[in-house]
Amino acid sequence: MEAILLTIGDEILIGQIVDTNSAWMAEQLNLQGIRVREIYSLSDTHAAITEGLQAALDKADLVLMTGGLGPTKDDITKKTLADFYGVELEFHEATYQRILSFFERLGRETTPAHREQCYLPANAQILTNRMGTAPGMWMERDGQVVVSMPGVPYEMKYLMENEVLPLVKTTFPGRPIGHRTVLTAGEGESRIAVRIADFEAALPERVKLAYLPSLGVVRLRLTATADSTAEVEQLLDERVAQLEALLPDLIFGYGRAKLAEVVGRELQNRGKYLATAESCTGGYVAHQITAIPGSSAYFRGSVVAYANEVKMEQLGVSEGTLVQHGAVSEATVREMVRGVLQTLGADVAIAISGIAGPGGGTADKPVGTIWLAVGDEQRVQTRQLNLGKDRLKNIQYTGNQALNMIRKFLLEG
Amino acid sequence: MEAILLTIGDEILIGQIVDTNSAWMAEQLNLQGIRVREIYSLSDTHAAITEGLQAALDKADLVLMTGGLGPTKDDITKKTLADFYGVELEFHEATYQRILSFFERLGRETTPAHREQCYLPANAQILTNRMGTAPGMWMERDGQVVVSMPGVPYEMKYLMENEVLPLVKTTFPGRPIGHRTVLTAGEGESRIAVRIADFEAALPERVKLAYLPSLGVVRLRLTATADSTAEVEQLLDERVAQLEALLPDLIFGYGRAKLAEVVGRELQNRGKYLATAESCTGGYVAHQITAIPGSSAYFRGSVVAYANEVKMEQLGVSEGTLVQHGAVSEATVREMVRGVLQTLGADVAIAISGIAGPGGGTADKPVGTIWLAVGDEQRVQTRQLNLGKDRLKNIQYTGNQALNMIRKFLLEG
Repeated sequence: MEAILLTIGDEILIGQIVDTNSAWMAEQLNLQGIRVREIYSLSDTHAAITEGLQAALDKADLVLMTGGLGPTKDDITKKTLADFYGVELEFHEATYQRILSFFERLGRETTPAHREQCYLPANAQILTNRMGTAPGMWMERDGQVVVSMPGVPYEMKYLMENEVLPLVKTTFPGRPIGHRTVLTAGEGESRIAVRIADFEAALPERVKLAYLPSLGVVRLRLTATADSTAEVEQLLDERVAQLEALLPDLIFGYGRAKLAEVVGRELQNRGKYLATAESCTGGYVAHQITAIPGSSAYFRGSVVAYANEVKMEQLGVSEGTLVQHGAVSEATVREMVRGVLQTLGADVAIAISGIAGPGGGTADKPVGTIWLAVGDEQRVQTRQLNLGKDRLKNIQYTGNQALNMIRKFLLEG
Repeated sequence: MEAILLTIGDEILIGQIVDTNSAWMAEQLNLQGIRVREIYSLSDTHAAITEGLQAALDKADLVLMTGGLGPTKDDITKKTLADFYGVELEFHEATYQRILSFFERLGRETTPAHREQCYLPANAQILTNRMGTAPGMWMERDGQVVVSMPGVPYEMKYLMENEVLPLVKTTFPGRPIGHRTVLTAGEGESRIAVRIADFEAALPERVKLAYLPSLGVVRLRLTATADSTAEVEQLLDERVAQLEALLPDLIFGYGRAKLAEVVGRELQNRGKYLATAESCTGGYVAHQITAIPGSSAYFRGSVVAYANEVKMEQLGVSEGTLVQHGAVSEATVREMVRGVLQTLGADVAIAISGIAGPGGGTADKPVGTIWLAVGDEQRVQTRQLNLGKDRLKNIQYTGNQALNMIRKFLLEG
């Protein structure tokens, strides 16, 4: 079973808004075993909508449209739909009464445009929108369904969850499909591909694998189809177990988990407090950690030591070390770890010092040279990275490496 | 002149990622006077890509594709493009050498998959990707252009800015069009609209104004078309001057300037060093400041004081203040400013303490209550924000308010 999504309106085509609706709808449909075959973003014109609708129905039996239903005069979606089905727009009294009482509750007056909104294609089954004025519409012909919904995200979500998905389920009972995403850090896409080459070659036709890499994190997504949900789950369980056996050192989580979240859980499970001492990452690691709700349960804080004086005075890095080895050195990050453990009273700490770029490199230490150290009172582990010249990318990549180092340090401890 | 965008790959179709590339690309093309007619998200199959490509070229002369170019075997975009043009894939030695030296710099080995990446359609003009391994490709036939780029956002952006947009400009020269973006902070979109209502009403047909609001910063983008570049420039110069007269207190820069960059320049001009003391923003402000190249010339560092003990021990906030007023209070942020000025030896400091959410609020201090203080040895200014419940939005919005407070403090000093 396949669906096609249409987003109507120029906001996306001029780059004014990012289309977040489609990803959410696609995920919901996939969870019901309906594959989204394609997504089209179309202009708010009679011709573009008619053409897009026809192209979609040539390929799929379910078409979900969002947008183009507001109370302004440039919304022509309803008229286009009526023409497409060769029906008239009819006044829908129940919708008008709902809008009147909706506005009464808000203590506001309706405008003539709201009455216009109640003229709907005669063949449409009306889907009640309790979050706004524009109703949803469900239209069937020759076993094919077209659904039209407003583009406001919370109105669309309300209609999907309460009206559209239940109707889809009864109208198109489908073949089971499922997904699992295995999250890895520590190796790039191509080296992972080498390590799991045999696994990939042995995948049956009904199980697909996709690599989704981003800044030091590679997500491996498995998709399976089968005759029953139980079989789908079994296919996925087996493959996830195989990946776990092949990549035990790289896997940090599943689904939508974040590295900072996993690190937080490991800290909390051990009753330990973390601190960071950051030079070139400038607070980015602390920001990643504190972007997770509840992080105050395991995060003490950070010393962002940009100036060398701050490294000496707040973190106790010795002048001799800075002179002899430089601020970007293994010796310095070791002293930074020791210093921040003490200064902030933490149990575990990470320290980072490097040349984020694009300038500031030397022959000896080119841009992208980064030193990291993770440690506690007993032991310290260090690592050197050699990255490129893009400052922000270096900071973000280093941030993920830092979080992964903390995670591995905790697991080994 | 019209373009169609194609995004290739199942990540979007299964709802795993939101397509942010298209909005960014659409904005860039619109700025060059090229209208994005439609956007298609397609599956990573030979049939889907071929069909989508043909449908796009039936409607527009420029087709920009992203995605489907990684080093793993599920990437079939290149093969499809070669078949589409009836050419072979040819080994591209220069690309291979670039990948080899890229990996050499990183001190890592390439895999056979990287060699595979260098087989490219014989008719393609290769666009050098300095941000990753997959090159961009520019293919022309019968006055129509197809461009293929990797889907990783920073690689795509690099290729667009450095290769694709310049080539588009020379290949499809259009009617002179120009843009200016005036950057404001400190007021919301609707209050700005009231202040410049007369200016907007008096705009001629060939000058358009767009509001682009984001987390406390509102960008005002002027677009002008005319018969000559000189005329475009004059139209824009006049309107920018009018906005400067209407919004002198809000404008902090132009174009792509960032608040953190402007703050950095103001600090550097005065020979002053900044420090931050952050509780609920958790290092985000320090990260914003240090994301700017050269920030070590005016940034000392930060104390991220998540735990109250860190506020007391590192920033000298008194226990009495914390007990009497709480960590989220005007008194606490005042003491944090004084403390961090001294601890980190800075000339100017900002302090932030609040409840970022989604939990942790009380009847007295609901989620979204944030206190900020900016100051030097002589004077301290404070401000309270009352925001919503979205943690990350609260952190980012507060970050922008903090930077704008520093900017105004410096200008008044």
